Amino acid sequence: MKINFSKCHSVLITGASRGLGLQMVRQLLYSPNRPPKIIATARNPAAAQELQELAKSHSNVHVLPLDVTSDSSVDAAVQSVDSIVGTNGLNCLINNAAINMTSELDTVTRDAMMKTYESNTVAPLFVTKAFLPLLRRAAAEGSDMGIQRAAVINVSSVLGSVQLNWGEGASYKSYAYRASKSALNMVTRCLAMDLEAEKILCVALHPGWVRTDMGGPTAPLSPEESISSVLSVISGLTEKHHGGYVDYTGKSLPW
Amino acid sequence: MKINFSKCHSVLITGASRGLGLQMVRQLLYSPNRPPKIIATARNPAAAQELQELAKSHSNVHVLPLDVTSDSSVDAAVQSVDSIVGTNGLNCLINNAAINMTSELDTVTRDAMMKTYESNTVAPLFVTKAFLPLLRRAAAEGSDMGIQRAAVINVSSVLGSVQLNWGEGASYKSYAYRASKSALNMVTRCLAMDLEAEKILCVALHPGWVRTDMGGPTAPLSPEESISSVLSVISGLTEKHHGGYVDYTGKSLPW
Ligand SMILES: NC(=O)c1ccc[n+]([C@@H]2O[C@H](COP(=O)([O-])OP(=O)(O)OC[C@H]3O[C@@H](n4cnc5c(N)ncnc54)[C@H](OP(=O)(O)O)[C@@H]3O)[C@@H](O)[C@H]2O)c1
Ligand SMILES: NC(=O)c1ccc[n+]([C@@H]2O[C@H](COP(=O)([O-])OP(=O)(O)OC[C@H]3O[C@@H](n4cnc5c(N)ncnc54)[C@H](OP(=O)(O)O)[C@@H]3O)[C@@H](O)[C@H]2O)c1
Repeated sequence: MKINFSKCHSVLITGASRGLGLQMVRQLLYSPNRPPKIIATARNPAAAQELQELAKSHSNVHVLPLDVTSDSSVDAAVQSVDSIVGTNGLNCLINNAAINMTSELDTVTRDAMMKTYESNTVAPLFVTKAFLPLLRRAAAEGSDMGIQRAAVINVSSVLGSVQLNWGEGASYKSYAYRASKSALNMVTRCLAMDLEAEKILCVALHPGWVRTDMGGPTAPLSPEESISSVLSVISGLTEKHHGGYVDYTGKSLPW
Repeated sequence: MKINFSKCHSVLITGASRGLGLQMVRQLLYSPNRPPKIIATARNPAAAQELQELAKSHSNVHVLPLDVTSDSSVDAAVQSVDSIVGTNGLNCLINNAAINMTSELDTVTRDAMMKTYESNTVAPLFVTKAFLPLLRRAAAEGSDMGIQRAAVINVSSVLGSVQLNWGEGASYKSYAYRASKSALNMVTRCLAMDLEAEKILCVALHPGWVRTDMGGPTAPLSPEESISSVLSVISGLTEKHHGGYVDYTGKSLPW
């Protein structure tokens, strides 16, 4: 499979200041089949130097402020995106922003649980709700399900799989992060049910374990490797993936 | 299977003021193989009239205040329970207290998501952490895994199953509640991994759809029916259930 966003007018990415979000912007931009409009959002765009560099030299990258935990920030972003995408609406929303905090059995705090849930689970739901009018506008075009119509990609993690959190699969410990991603998987599936009639595709996607600030230096994948696969998988999403949980190779994961 | 708590010195139940928690206290009390110590907790015991009646006439019911969302309340309860259970420790902790709030796609709020998570997911984790010294004391006796040794029962729901939230199984809509129970399932599994070496059994349990304030009047099961099954299932828990997700009939559920 190849990266192919040529029939997708617009993509919005949250958390594009660094890590996987920034890499998505970069690879979309340099792809021959890039989307005409790449909306790269960050909670503090002024501090996102690499993103600013990319935007400076490419007119199809639109950088916008978006703190996913703030309603007023989300609402302002929706206004700006509305005027960027116009009558085409928004085709692809990638909820990528997330946090991780140390939270093993001995160290987990109520506050770490709550803050992680707020960023990783609640925020993607409310960002999606806020962008629904623009996603619906794109979905009204009536194409087949996929990024050419309208899609919500929730960047989850294999660490959100309850099933796989056993034996070897349980070696990485984090109550706050794991619980937030399991809950995000549930939110994704609820959205998939609720948006099925409008044929807005919803999936939970695990990008692999990647060398970013979050993944750490010992992860097996580079951001380039992860995101080239991730973008291919996103390119190829069809109705059969709706409500599913897939990894960067396209493989289905157990919940 | 029968209700048999005769080798279990002590059981603690959260949210015993009404609904399933109160029914657990009642049925444990009237069972021929009852545990010597039934610790019934409620956030406002003074307002829990039926519970007070039961306690008045039965010296093995100990009523204690416990608001599961408050650290100081949890800590005070641990102190009281310590002096009730003594050197035997606490054998069985039932995290039953929970809330539900309307939260469909159109009505869900960030606040409903956060409050529900706090009560249904974060609280059971921190109640368990706080009672760990007493559970460990009971586990040190060295019996086989089960309620005769030490067990944490997290009352979850089939609505927390991401897998089953599809088609018919998706007819009940609640982002806040469903996400909180999926996350509770993950917390249960994390606890199961972390407490495996000490042979403290951890399970997520779905009590069925029951006619309580939460379940509503159209639910198929009475509290008596649900809880007689639930207590039989709890009586029969062994190491093979550790880290699992079972319903009131003992059947395994997919995550
Ligand atoms: N790396 C891995 O191995 C791995 C594995 C599985 C899943 N994932 C998932 O992949 C996604 C990206 O992870 P990553 O490795 O790129 O993480 P990262 O390097 O830590 O970057 C996280 C990004 O999220 C942004 N962010 C956090 N909170 C935000 C908020 N409230 N509003 C807006 N942006 C916010 C950060 O912005 P600031 O720069 O402003 O902090 C940053 O851009 C996450 O969903 C993560 O859970 C990663
Ligand atoms: N009923 C069903 O059909 C059903 C189905 C699946 C799962 N469940 C689960 O079964 C459990 C019991 O449900 P139920 O039907 O008995 O619900 P319920 O009738 O609404 O009773 C809820 C209980 O939880 C207590 N509670 C809530 N927040 C608390 C807090 N912060 N601290 C202490 N206690 C608190 C309530 O105390 P107050 O009286 O002080 O409010 C009450 O005792 C819950 O975990 C629920 O999710 C129920």
